[in-house]
Amino acid sequence: MSHSDFHDQARAAREAAHVLAGLTRSRKDQALHAMAAALLAAQDEVLDANAADLERAKAAGTAQSMLDRLALDPARLEAMARGLQDLAALADPIGETLRGFSTPDGLQISQVRVPLGVVGIIYEARPNVTADAAGICLKSGNAALLRGSSSALESNRTVVAALRNGLEEVGLDPNTVNLVEGGREVTGEMMTARGLVDVLIPRGGAGLIEAVVTGSTVPVIETGTGNCHLFVDVDADQDMALRIMLNAKTQRPSVCNALETVLVHRKVAETFVPRMVQALTAAGVTVHGDESVTCLEPGVVPAGPGEYDAEYLSLDLAARVVADVDEAVDHIRAHSSGHSETIITGNLVTADRFVSTVDAAAVLVNASSRFVDGGEFGFGAEIGISTQKLHARGPMALAEMTSTKYVVRGQGHVRA
Amino acid sequence: MSHSDFHDQARAAREAAHVLAGLTRSRKDQALHAMAAALLAAQDEVLDANAADLERAKAAGTAQSMLDRLALDPARLEAMARGLQDLAALADPIGETLRGFSTPDGLQISQVRVPLGVVGIIYEARPNVTADAAGICLKSGNAALLRGSSSALESNRTVVAALRNGLEEVGLDPNTVNLVEGGREVTGEMMTARGLVDVLIPRGGAGLIEAVVTGSTVPVIETGTGNCHLFVDVDADQDMALRIMLNAKTQRPSVCNALETVLVHRKVAETFVPRMVQALTAAGVTVHGDESVTCLEPGVVPAGPGEYDAEYLSLDLAARVVADVDEAVDHIRAHSSGHSETIITGNLVTADRFVSTVDAAAVLVNASSRFVDGGEFGFGAEIGISTQKLHARGPMALAEMTSTKYVVRGQGHVRA
Repeated sequence: MSHSDFHDQARAAREAAHVLAGLTRSRKDQALHAMAAALLAAQDEVLDANAADLERAKAAGTAQSMLDRLALDPARLEAMARGLQDLAALADPIGETLRGFSTPDGLQISQVRVPLGVVGIIYEARPNVTADAAGICLKSGNAALLRGSSSALESNRTVVAALRNGLEEVGLDPNTVNLVEGGREVTGEMMTARGLVDVLIPRGGAGLIEAVVTGSTVPVIETGTGNCHLFVDVDADQDMALRIMLNAKTQRPSVCNALETVLVHRKVAETFVPRMVQALTAAGVTVHGDESVTCLEPGVVPAGPGEYDAEYLSLDLAARVVADVDEAVDHIRAHSSGHSETIITGNLVTADRFVSTVDAAAVLVNASSRFVDGGEFGFGAEIGISTQKLHARGPMALAEMTSTKYVVRGQGHVRA
Repeated sequence: MSHSDFHDQARAAREAAHVLAGLTRSRKDQALHAMAAALLAAQDEVLDANAADLERAKAAGTAQSMLDRLALDPARLEAMARGLQDLAALADPIGETLRGFSTPDGLQISQVRVPLGVVGIIYEARPNVTADAAGICLKSGNAALLRGSSSALESNRTVVAALRNGLEEVGLDPNTVNLVEGGREVTGEMMTARGLVDVLIPRGGAGLIEAVVTGSTVPVIETGTGNCHLFVDVDADQDMALRIMLNAKTQRPSVCNALETVLVHRKVAETFVPRMVQALTAAGVTVHGDESVTCLEPGVVPAGPGEYDAEYLSLDLAARVVADVDEAVDHIRAHSSGHSETIITGNLVTADRFVSTVDAAAVLVNASSRFVDGGEFGFGAEIGISTQKLHARGPMALAEMTSTKYVVRGQGHVRA
């Protein structure tokens, strides 16, 4: 795809977004149902295309875990369709009035939610993201430029074709949902298309996110890197601490809200660290630690330099003993990616101190960080978990896919 | 200032921000009053330094309008101090709970306002921005890295020294407010200091804003470019249209919410355009127009290519005749910077159509765009007017200088 091809596509998406911004909720919900039906109707084409993608990936020696992410089957396709239908059941964020007031001279001012416009999503292998992101964009009134990975190209083409068929069936512009094709240079065009693309959201690994954040002149919402900590306070219920630790580490180790580092209060370290290592080892987790831990449990793998700074995203966990809650907070400040940080304590003062001094998208008391998720929060949809401070922080759902505008009504008001 | 000097300064600001985030409103208000008092106490030093800046600027042949912006006097200094005191009277945005709910399993979730952290502000000549920005940052719990222009360096040094004295007097870290000195390369360091600087806000002309937006890897809030339009509908009260047009154009032509282009409905153009040109000319405004206007008023200056795309920021105004509200909206979509767009009409349907289809930070009905301002909206403080869609759009006050965090409280909750 040449430079002008992408720009033409983005301009067409902009036109579609202009119309979409004015649609009622009923029209958008009708479109979501039509998209779901069209996706199910295209099952044979989608699964054939996916088989071709899988064959190509296998021939290229792709790892099994990646193949699993890439693979579609009738059940996954049905889940994609159900996801679109579920979006139809959610309230429309557009038009919500966030503030409304009158000035002393009688100007009436209201701040209302409006769509962002054209949203670009750059993501990796999973083709279910294609339907998911298209649906969330549509419900929030945004046209979507979907830049999936080349490994899922055939699958994404058939999915997007089906979604566009659904849009056309209800009389909407198919350019509301677009697959961005072409080589690496097209990603560059997308990242610098200021004025055409309103926001870029990368969904994927740390490398992808870093590349988009540093290469874009279009505003970016950073998602997903989670170097999450759990602090076991001196006043913790140790059984609860173990339960939550195991859940946060092992329930799904590859995701951003999984636990990566445990910090243990010095006064309970001698009893807790051995229990912890035993429980984690029994669950298949390898514990890594500096001398504060290895001196209590010689079986622990010595932690290398920088090991407290990165996500494992695997059945590995870093551990360290700290003097108190303040040293725990200091460790988190130095190493955290600002995603989800947890304290286990029965002490209210300590809990309050942790909550107020830890700076992260989510701070948890006596609960697993795996709950930091749009679905678990009851938002019904999630486009990602923002770890930046601007615009949206934490699970991003429909409201986070909007902007606002001020409407000012006067009766001939001029400024003195 | 070498690379490491700026990074040291930013790190010190980060430490200050960590403490600042936990301060009560009383402590912050006490600091604002101390900063105001210290600024007044330093009047002689500040005015001497300002005189030196002015002399240097005059010697360099700086334009009178720039000298006016640079100049301080006792009255302006007092206004700066009063600005800080006024901030103390405003509510603290930090700690406000935006959402609070429980999940079906009893997790208690709340979303609370927290500071952004370290805010970098890059701005042009006016030294009053230094106190203003420092105060807004402090009240919203953010440490400030202030990058003023070299032309105001001596003034800014004395202002920042006074503000830091005020902070120290009440026992706070002076690194809460910092002047960033050094050559152009330091601006580059500031723009790429991801992880040290949480957000950059450029305040100034279009060139400065463009440079910061395209050169930064730190998230930026774009402020200030306003290519604002006013549409005179067929159902407009023409006297009201003239009054509002004159106010929006001439009350302060150099600012971003001043009017730049008038669009006139074709059906009233023949009577309205001559009246408009006469009134504007009498007010010292030069009207520029394409053939749709020059054919009605030969005295109008023919508009050159691109003239509908830029701000004049002077007593010049572009004009064009359009077929109807839809053509007016199309013109605005093609040429607007998304700041403030106005319709003058007595027709409710037309007003609604304009309000719903124009995509801008503010859309006005029968009122001057000069009202789009934090002060006029009653926000009490303003750091700029955002023309981007992410995070904040329109006048940015204290709430817009914050982020949020989710606090999740459980009783041992783990995810199934």
